[in-house]
Amino acid sequence: MSQRSNGPYQLIYWPQIPGRGEFIRLALEEAGADYTDTAHEKDGINTVLALIDKNYEGDQSGPPPFAPPILKHGDLRISQTPNILLYLAPRLGLTPDGDAIYQVNSLALTALDGLSDETHDTHHPIASELYYEDQLEESKRRSESYRKNRLPKFLSYFERVLKPQAALGRPWLYGTTLTYADLVLFQGIDGLKFAFPRALSRLEKSGEYANVFKLYEAVKNRPRIKEYLASDRRQKYSLGIYRHYPELDDAE
Amino acid sequence: MSQRSNGPYQLIYWPQIPGRGEFIRLALEEAGADYTDTAHEKDGINTVLALIDKNYEGDQSGPPPFAPPILKHGDLRISQTPNILLYLAPRLGLTPDGDAIYQVNSLALTALDGLSDETHDTHHPIASELYYEDQLEESKRRSESYRKNRLPKFLSYFERVLKPQAALGRPWLYGTTLTYADLVLFQGIDGLKFAFPRALSRLEKSGEYANVFKLYEAVKNRPRIKEYLASDRRQKYSLGIYRHYPELDDAE
Repeated sequence: MSQRSNGPYQLIYWPQIPGRGEFIRLALEEAGADYTDTAHEKDGINTVLALIDKNYEGDQSGPPPFAPPILKHGDLRISQTPNILLYLAPRLGLTPDGDAIYQVNSLALTALDGLSDETHDTHHPIASELYYEDQLEESKRRSESYRKNRLPKFLSYFERVLKPQAALGRPWLYGTTLTYADLVLFQGIDGLKFAFPRALSRLEKSGEYANVFKLYEAVKNRPRIKEYLASDRRQKYSLGIYRHYPELDDAE
Repeated sequence: MSQRSNGPYQLIYWPQIPGRGEFIRLALEEAGADYTDTAHEKDGINTVLALIDKNYEGDQSGPPPFAPPILKHGDLRISQTPNILLYLAPRLGLTPDGDAIYQVNSLALTALDGLSDETHDTHHPIASELYYEDQLEESKRRSESYRKNRLPKFLSYFERVLKPQAALGRPWLYGTTLTYADLVLFQGIDGLKFAFPRALSRLEKSGEYANVFKLYEAVKNRPRIKEYLASDRRQKYSLGIYRHYPELDDAE
């Protein structure tokens, strides 16, 4: 493919949380791409802040980004997690050619909706500008709904996508090889295991989502992903999308 | 462009609400595309229900969709609003060629996040499976945050994107011609005018988002859009994403 490019890419994202930047990092790492990451650069945060400054109006590389993650590749600068993944996928070999990318993109968007955006709202159901402590009771209600209804709905969906694939001996969401949708699903499950360990253990043990958890393990054991997860480049979860508040998890 | 195709397309979406289907309809209408819409077909809802049935595992046209809107074009069936728009845009002439589509996609995703997904959560901040009445107090808190903080933040962002464009005499978010991002921003503002008429009137009168509201009028007056909005094909807002609950709007 003429589009193939191993980089160099520049990921521009907040330091100290894996956050939404992690979906991009996993794609770059799985492909063994050449990239830099402001999260690991001294004063890297200033690069983020300059691009989302309320007076910044963009330049020839692109309009101003609303929020990180932001990707630079040559003269192009783009933002929005699923958009960056869409751009990278054909360049990194993380999608089949042709219209298949619209299937992969749809699966990735659904995983981002259900296992990242909705997860964020479990600890910020009222307002992202308020502290968690100021929306604690609402967080408990929303988390209960998420653990009991929304999350099982999304997991059932992905299990249903994986079932006919498994019958053909394919461990991935689409086609015969790993795509970026698999990486997004992996990262969503991984973050949820940190945030809601009891609920995820219950869901895994139910056996109802066996193919989803098999895919999780398969991604985790990809040689480059395994090396990455053990490296200093993989940041610890803290106060990002995936937060561990025991009071929001299943009761013991 | 070899990709250009005026259809026929089939939009598969719920009847009786504009909902997320409306973002797709506006693209099809602006382009004068040949399309059918299950919202206007007798028993069209059964087409939606069959594709999201919990036992449906997809077929050669694609994996099962998580939710409508769903688009069929020839042998291909895809879902997820921004994904369908991404697919249609080069076919309908609603994006420039080349990497520009990643800028347009980013703008569209941001408008969908801020003026559609977050808007939905103003009346369902706790659980989408609960009635509005069962999350009324939480809805009031979330709506206040939305009207005072989130929505102005998104409008300021789009105003900032439009400012350098306006200086070049361009009314659109990106480039020299209308793109699907403009249609998404139009529909977001239109839905918000229905849902929060007092807040939108306040924001418009502030003059701080003059280019955003100019774009809104410019889209509204596109000949095909104007004809569409006056037709029976344009459905009325009711209990979809954009709901008018006076108690959630600015105080009088």
